[in-house]
Amino acid sequence: MTPAPFDIAAAIAQMDAVRTRQPLVQCLTNSVTVGFVANVLLAAGATPAMVDSAGESEVFAREAADAVLVNLGTPHPAKCEGIRAIGFSAPSMPPWVLDPVAVGALPVRTELAHALVAAGPSMIRGNASEIAALAGTGTGGRGVDSVLGPDDVVDAARTLASRTGGAVAVSGEVDLVTDGETVVRIANGHPLFTAVTGGGCALGAVTAAYAAVAPSPLIGAAAAATVYAIAGEKAAARSAGPGSFAVELLDALHALTPADIAQKAVIS
Amino acid sequence: MTPAPFDIAAAIAQMDAVRTRQPLVQCLTNSVTVGFVANVLLAAGATPAMVDSAGESEVFAREAADAVLVNLGTPHPAKCEGIRAIGFSAPSMPPWVLDPVAVGALPVRTELAHALVAAGPSMIRGNASEIAALAGTGTGGRGVDSVLGPDDVVDAARTLASRTGGAVAVSGEVDLVTDGETVVRIANGHPLFTAVTGGGCALGAVTAAYAAVAPSPLIGAAAAATVYAIAGEKAAARSAGPGSFAVELLDALHALTPADIAQKAVIS
Amino acid sequence: MTPAPFDIAAAIAQMDAVRTRQPLVQCLTNSVTVGFVANVLLAAGATPAMVDSAGESEVFAREAADAVLVNLGTPHPAKCEGIRAIGFSAPSMPPWVLDPVAVGALPVRTELAHALVAAGPSMIRGNASEIAALAGTGTGGRGVDSVLGPDDVVDAARTLASRTGGAVAVSGEVDLVTDGETVVRIANGHPLFTAVTGGGCALGAVTAAYAAVAPSPLIGAAAAATVYAIAGEKAAARSAGPGSFAVELLDALHALTPADIAQKAVIS
Repeated sequence: MTPAPFDIAAAIAQMDAVRTRQPLVQCLTNSVTVGFVANVLLAAGATPAMVDSAGESEVFAREAADAVLVNLGTPHPAKCEGIRAIGFSAPSMPPWVLDPVAVGALPVRTELAHALVAAGPSMIRGNASEIAALAGTGTGGRGVDSVLGPDDVVDAARTLASRTGGAVAVSGEVDLVTDGETVVRIANGHPLFTAVTGGGCALGAVTAAYAAVAPSPLIGAAAAATVYAIAGEKAAARSAGPGSFAVELLDALHALTPADIAQKAVIS
Repeated sequence: MTPAPFDIAAAIAQMDAVRTRQPLVQCLTNSVTVGFVANVLLAAGATPAMVDSAGESEVFAREAADAVLVNLGTPHPAKCEGIRAIGFSAPSMPPWVLDPVAVGALPVRTELAHALVAAGPSMIRGNASEIAALAGTGTGGRGVDSVLGPDDVVDAARTLASRTGGAVAVSGEVDLVTDGETVVRIANGHPLFTAVTGGGCALGAVTAAYAAVAPSPLIGAAAAATVYAIAGEKAAARSAGPGSFAVELLDALHALTPADIAQKAVIS
Repeated sequence: MTPAPFDIAAAIAQMDAVRTRQPLVQCLTNSVTVGFVANVLLAAGATPAMVDSAGESEVFAREAADAVLVNLGTPHPAKCEGIRAIGFSAPSMPPWVLDPVAVGALPVRTELAHALVAAGPSMIRGNASEIAALAGTGTGGRGVDSVLGPDDVVDAARTLASRTGGAVAVSGEVDLVTDGETVVRIANGHPLFTAVTGGGCALGAVTAAYAAVAPSPLIGAAAAATVYAIAGEKAAARSAGPGSFAVELLDALHALTPADIAQKAVIS
């Protein structure tokens, strides 16, 4: 009998590994949610390093980072240069995650996204409209919002994972993670995630932190999605709205226990 | 008898319209408060889209946005390019709001502000010193703070509204909104708004969300000011200081009811 | 008998002076924590002005600012231009603070940092690894985190202070402030400061606010460190984790009383 590729024990083991090793996660991310993303990484036990300027980004990726996040929101020229300076295909490159925010109709980020997919990210994390646009089976969503659900794009996600040799994680009511063969579904989370800006961006960053420690992209991406979604469930239970949810999410992620994962995870 | 141009019923109707239609509000705003502004838009029921890079900003304004906010804080070269790329006078342009942060003595933003006024914004929202500087009757405030009150600049606001053909909203202890003829005053709000960064910027964005649905600039700007100020009153009642106020403001805006508006609005 | 160069009474007097004079603090800071830094300045009683674009930064520094903060995180080209435009050695220059975030291995900011040290900042605030790298006795930390403690770099801090003619503040479990001769230690603070992004950046900004009013760099830097650390202690006592800590810190800083300082300060 083949062991399950991902289960509750794996999620707990990866959460412990991130907290123990405190991976240094270099983020080239958008200017809207950069502070929130850094705080989520800290709360998850990782060490954020927002090193995104050309002249520094390539040095840090090569010599210091344990994982790299590339998030394509707000693709200002200076940030695009900082991304292009990195040798994503170099042997020294640590695991890296692509978060293709709002790709599809917006030209600058869409062109950059396709170039990055060709460089083979360890993981891609997006919503269903973004994954469809990246796989060439859709034209993107409405701003940053998806008009599709993860199960509408399972074939696109598998195709993309096979093409990159990594894992693809599709966020939605039920998250879906695939390495092209296995498909894992995580039925955790809370609607308040869509009521705050950066809910998706921060998951992309947490995914990078897990990429630094995980034995495979599939397990890393699935563990990140599980831990983050369960922290959101705990936070929502203590929140009176989107403002308190963002605060409680950081507290919950910081305080999350293996027992929380064991009791709440809904993985299939 | 002419009906009142703006009253409590109009504020409630506009709040409902924003929540129902969830307008896509494109923001070209400053880097200090961009995350807070996005969260306030979400809490108000709108959909933020911080698309501000040249090559994307003009595509999004033309094809996707229901309203556009231009906020002149932190006028970095890349952001100025993103603003200049937009054809504000094009027939396809949706309603747009100019927030002339700290115009007056600071040359880059002041020059850009005058060019934008000439393009005819649907609404301008600022504090009294900013409105005076824009109308040519003052030299600006102290950083982002006003040294004047709204009633000191009522003539400047009317002049500016007549010149642009839109509405002008002046924020202060009592907010003032005019379309050049009618003047509406809203005596709601709380001093804690000036104790957090982005209190004014976020109102500019909410004003853009209301611009997307309102039957006239005057009604849109006045409804936005009313709803936002009353959310602030509710938030302040639950706050222990500026940190908790910012959190409670998001929760209050998200939970605001027509009854809250009916009970608290002080419109004249 | 020489009076103590810094004591509890001096910390209280400086806190009052900032709140009374509300100094206008111009910040050229990083994009990760810029909003949090502005909110901390407001909570401390100062007036933030994030004027960092070339064409404006030099005008504001010369004509309006009561103090200037230069924080070297995220050294994007536009921000570096905004910094270089300022005439730091001009007679009209107000007190200014250098926060050399993550200098050492990262080339862009390290080169800029050495040029700024040569221009003689009134105060330098960093962690021990940053101070060692700046003094030429170390190679920097792990991302933004220090691998040394303040007492490991007391000689480096004294050397740097003597070289600039200002004060050097080293943040850590026990903060250390020196003007090259006197060394003050402040044993206040809380580990949660390292669990939120911007804990150090915000102290740099508060230090600039105190620089605007203080009779000497040593007293300004030491008073800022004392007030900020004690606010953190009060905030931590009410926090359930890093999310609530950041919120409570703003509330505590806003509400801090002379009695809080008198009861909690541990100065030697």
